[in-house]
Amino acid sequence: MIHFESDYLEGCCPQILEALRQTNLEQTLGYGEDPHCEKAADMIRYVFDCPEAEVHFLVGGTQTNATVIASQLRPHQGVLCAESGHINIHETGAVESSGHKVLALPATDGKISAAQVRQALEAHHSDFSREHMVQPGMVYISFPTELGTIYSRQELEELHTVCQEWEIPLFVDGARLGYGLEASGCNILPKDLPRLSDIFYVGGTKQGALFGEAVVFPRPALAEDFRYLIKQHGGMLAKGRLLGIQYEVLMNEGLYFQLARRADRLADRVREAFRSKGFSFLVENTTNQVFPILPHAAIESLSAGFGFECWQHVDEERDAVRFCTSWATEERAIAELEAYIRHNF
Amino acid sequence: MIHFESDYLEGCCPQILEALRQTNLEQTLGYGEDPHCEKAADMIRYVFDCPEAEVHFLVGGTQTNATVIASQLRPHQGVLCAESGHINIHETGAVESSGHKVLALPATDGKISAAQVRQALEAHHSDFSREHMVQPGMVYISFPTELGTIYSRQELEELHTVCQEWEIPLFVDGARLGYGLEASGCNILPKDLPRLSDIFYVGGTKQGALFGEAVVFPRPALAEDFRYLIKQHGGMLAKGRLLGIQYEVLMNEGLYFQLARRADRLADRVREAFRSKGFSFLVENTTNQVFPILPHAAIESLSAGFGFECWQHVDEERDAVRFCTSWATEERAIAELEAYIRHNF
Amino acid sequence: MIHFESDYLEGCCPQILEALRQTNLEQTLGYGEDPHCEKAADMIRYVFDCPEAEVHFLVGGTQTNATVIASQLRPHQGVLCAESGHINIHETGAVESSGHKVLALPATDGKISAAQVRQALEAHHSDFSREHMVQPGMVYISFPTELGTIYSRQELEELHTVCQEWEIPLFVDGARLGYGLEASGCNILPKDLPRLSDIFYVGGTKQGALFGEAVVFPRPALAEDFRYLIKQHGGMLAKGRLLGIQYEVLMNEGLYFQLARRADRLADRVREAFRSKGFSFLVENTTNQVFPILPHAAIESLSAGFGFECWQHVDEERDAVRFCTSWATEERAIAELEAYIRHNF
Amino acid sequence: MIHFESDYLEGCCPQILEALRQTNLEQTLGYGEDPHCEKAADMIRYVFDCPEAEVHFLVGGTQTNATVIASQLRPHQGVLCAESGHINIHETGAVESSGHKVLALPATDGKISAAQVRQALEAHHSDFSREHMVQPGMVYISFPTELGTIYSRQELEELHTVCQEWEIPLFVDGARLGYGLEASGCNILPKDLPRLSDIFYVGGTKQGALFGEAVVFPRPALAEDFRYLIKQHGGMLAKGRLLGIQYEVLMNEGLYFQLARRADRLADRVREAFRSKGFSFLVENTTNQVFPILPHAAIESLSAGFGFECWQHVDEERDAVRFCTSWATEERAIAELEAYIRHNF
Repeated sequence: MIHFESDYLEGCCPQILEALRQTNLEQTLGYGEDPHCEKAADMIRYVFDCPEAEVHFLVGGTQTNATVIASQLRPHQGVLCAESGHINIHETGAVESSGHKVLALPATDGKISAAQVRQALEAHHSDFSREHMVQPGMVYISFPTELGTIYSRQELEELHTVCQEWEIPLFVDGARLGYGLEASGCNILPKDLPRLSDIFYVGGTKQGALFGEAVVFPRPALAEDFRYLIKQHGGMLAKGRLLGIQYEVLMNEGLYFQLARRADRLADRVREAFRSKGFSFLVENTTNQVFPILPHAAIESLSAGFGFECWQHVDEERDAVRFCTSWATEERAIAELEAYIRHNF
Repeated sequence: MIHFESDYLEGCCPQILEALRQTNLEQTLGYGEDPHCEKAADMIRYVFDCPEAEVHFLVGGTQTNATVIASQLRPHQGVLCAESGHINIHETGAVESSGHKVLALPATDGKISAAQVRQALEAHHSDFSREHMVQPGMVYISFPTELGTIYSRQELEELHTVCQEWEIPLFVDGARLGYGLEASGCNILPKDLPRLSDIFYVGGTKQGALFGEAVVFPRPALAEDFRYLIKQHGGMLAKGRLLGIQYEVLMNEGLYFQLARRADRLADRVREAFRSKGFSFLVENTTNQVFPILPHAAIESLSAGFGFECWQHVDEERDAVRFCTSWATEERAIAELEAYIRHNF
Repeated sequence: MIHFESDYLEGCCPQILEALRQTNLEQTLGYGEDPHCEKAADMIRYVFDCPEAEVHFLVGGTQTNATVIASQLRPHQGVLCAESGHINIHETGAVESSGHKVLALPATDGKISAAQVRQALEAHHSDFSREHMVQPGMVYISFPTELGTIYSRQELEELHTVCQEWEIPLFVDGARLGYGLEASGCNILPKDLPRLSDIFYVGGTKQGALFGEAVVFPRPALAEDFRYLIKQHGGMLAKGRLLGIQYEVLMNEGLYFQLARRADRLADRVREAFRSKGFSFLVENTTNQVFPILPHAAIESLSAGFGFECWQHVDEERDAVRFCTSWATEERAIAELEAYIRHNF
Repeated sequence: MIHFESDYLEGCCPQILEALRQTNLEQTLGYGEDPHCEKAADMIRYVFDCPEAEVHFLVGGTQTNATVIASQLRPHQGVLCAESGHINIHETGAVESSGHKVLALPATDGKISAAQVRQALEAHHSDFSREHMVQPGMVYISFPTELGTIYSRQELEELHTVCQEWEIPLFVDGARLGYGLEASGCNILPKDLPRLSDIFYVGGTKQGALFGEAVVFPRPALAEDFRYLIKQHGGMLAKGRLLGIQYEVLMNEGLYFQLARRADRLADRVREAFRSKGFSFLVENTTNQVFPILPHAAIESLSAGFGFECWQHVDEERDAVRFCTSWATEERAIAELEAYIRHNF
């Protein structure tokens, strides 16, 4: 059985394991105040070209989203996001648990537009009864989205412009950031993110690390007292250097991006294999997740040798499924999948 | 410089590192539903003799405390604990953040008594205005306490009896559980915990793991839907098997207890070294934390070669300091400290 | 200017004012533990035929909704309701503020169906990832709805049946309960509510009282410690007897229902006046809110002499507006409105 | 039986009842946006000499405290207050319910000092582990305190100075504000409050109104979006004008202060009656609450004809009790109590 169910099936890239081994007996202060975290933060500031940024390391994505959002909103404010946004669907109400409504907007291929956000903000603030409604206080997007699609630079710029007009922060969930930045057709560079968003994170868990998400506040004013919030949300790792060590490795000589690029290219091959047999896709995308729409028979047939996720019901005869590649996907696994598709459909 | 500041200065015991290496490319389901977590849970059920127990793995202590407490209380309920309890002092209000008041009781050497708890419960429930006050809905103790002291079996039994009378759960924070169970003079056995408490956890972070806390619900009814709460609190690790793998190692052939015992014995030597020179202690205890009361000159002198924490102001001339041993403390380090004390005080 | 903007434009029905005057210097215990509250609760139990019920009095609707919902849900649970539900739209996130997600379902004329609720519950509980999602723990409906429509007895029965199957409570927001029960075509009787729902309230604010909502728990087990929650949510009125006194008056000799019936009949006249001129309505309904769809010119013309609310944009030329009647609406006001419509459209 | 149990035993002063009667059929917008609320706010601005202030009306004290505190704090912040503070003891954890820890300081006669507050702030901010602790973000005091004592102008100035140094707001719970300002020995004037605090409220419930608390933000920046928070906390009364109408009456020609002064003078007579017989008091104070310490026999004897509260156990033979006067206390009632004391002790 060859597994494509998700991009967190394995441990971590071998370089990280080696770094953990080498540093294991070092004695450092806890809670992220160690030289590894400092150096990793510096590397992130360098790679994303935001020398003034505050960088904080957390363990996982749900924790990061809830902590960042709680750090920015007042109690009567909510966060605008796509209906399909991770915070709206798959975090067991962590945002609501800290008191804030998720203000979901209809999504197109997992994305929301500047026009939608502007409309929501204008509608709220011009409503006579606005004080009876949750005030939009922040915008959350995922890059890439939960459907593996990416925003163009122009789309991101427009979203950020609206946010600036209304003086609310734009927060980019980058759990799969690298896969997005390395996707073919992506015209956003790492150095664009600090300019086009107010808070973003560089996901580790799904991109070669054992765990870890690096939150970047390009303009430190928004990060005031953020460490208190990390601690309150249970995200302050005692042995914080484990996060620093991992990001030192990932940021070293572009490893983070190399791993992502390789996974994206392998996903392209999967896409191409399905496309060449005439299958369509739930969305057109170029990152490490592939969502072919397959007839039930094809799904059953593939299931014998390959692991993947059933993603969404499409019609009587077909479902959309998801194949994920990752830093750990072997070239051989892709070749087998290609061969199977070629010969069986 | 030899470091005794805390018991989380280093990475993890080498056996864990090796297990992570060996399992690194295994492909498993995420979120704790993998064979390693299953096996580790079985081992914990066996070691603590609670075959019916539900076992859940979380990343860190603050997260674990907040999640467990939120899972048990209704909104108008609070948690009784020692004034010096970790949840009351050092978790940035994580418990309040999920809506619950910490009902602090005066502590003696870090401990609270069954009589105090009974008095608090009786006072509340007999008060005409009780509905205007937070209802005690749970008791939280640490074993060992934040001052490294331990409850006797009788004390624990009495606490549990009160809790049973009032039908509220007794929750034992076991961030340093092993150090407590292996302390000289401890008359509580692993198998007593499921009988004498309702929820407890087996701390990993401070006892040889990179991170991790294993929560045990001896009677599964209290664990209903607990995984939802873990997820909501941001404690559900995507690569959950990292926790399972670590606990498999720690529970194997008693490693967890061996590491703790060794650290306790090394701490005993530190205690003895100070005691033999006539120093007194903030508390009398037998676990891996040592709290000698030292004159300022002695503190300064020791600081040149040894790292330790200033813990508490005592009087004009003296402070209490803390030396911690851990699974990682080298025998050589203890010998040097002993020698220094012997020759300089 | 004759006002139809809402059903809370005036003070209270004169009988209540008189009762407040007569009881003003009585000395009673505070916080709802006085003879007036006791007697009013008895009267409600009698009128709604639920002799075992617990009855609690709160000040306003948002407070009541948030308090009831918080009293029933565990932290990972949310409340199913219509997209147009008051808790979803017009309470500034009070439900989220106490930690719970509102799980909005598409509404038809303000209503949700048993089939929708069943589908949502089945979908949740059969989802492999359910622990990553908010668990539906309650159903909230408004009777009448925010659009003035009412559930039929069969619809309510079906909703309750689903809730019972899944063992979650059905909560009926009765801010305008009387207007619903007295609506023409309503086949639900007061005595049906305790049988067909688990919690409901008898709204006072919009039905003749200065303020006040009487929450009824037909089966007291669901009301455990509810007074603690009222207090915590700031809803426990010091001079609680003010609520008791008002409900004594409203429940006396059916006054509550008479006032509602009269308002409904006046609304019927407004509806008929518009209908006879060929206007259509946003919804077909029979309670005290009327939602004609009017061209802009008609809206402007009416605005000169009548106050009403612009409710919803319909198309380029027309908006839906809302006219409300209430216990306080004068027959003369309706006659003038009828005349105006008759002569001008 | 003559009742002195509390200052909210009766309805309201007759002038308010009359105003409610006269305005009953006026039609006004809801939610506090009516001419009565506007005028009442103006009167409060005038009486307290704070022409720039924002004034908001809420229904009750617990609601007001929770709403104000939630409006000022970030999630990791808590509120400093006296251990005996109402928010710490008697509000069923409403503050914690919105996520914030109450940071209780030992009180002297119900009061805390500037020195205590400064010490707490300095201790927090100089602590190496401060991010693991709740950050003090606000100071709450009651004036008068829960023990009926009052701060001197100098004490209040000192508290405010500390708060300004640390840039955190000083919030004065004025549920019994009038009784404090009119107390003999009080050297604080109404116009001092806007200068010496950042937020305060003018309590109505216990001082002649049916209900109501008027929150004053002398410097409006702190009130940003406060109405959203009122709504979220369930404190926005639909018929908001009821609050405006009551405060119009109370602020008219000094009625609020006259009622308070009269009650304070009656309380002085109660105090004097007990003092002349040699009884001591739990605290020395001059407001409308009197706390004599009485032997059990005296308590029993008094109980036959007078209602009062048992407040606190003092020793084997004696308890402290509480007698309250209010705007409604009749001179005759005081005379009877005086006579009883004179003849029986």
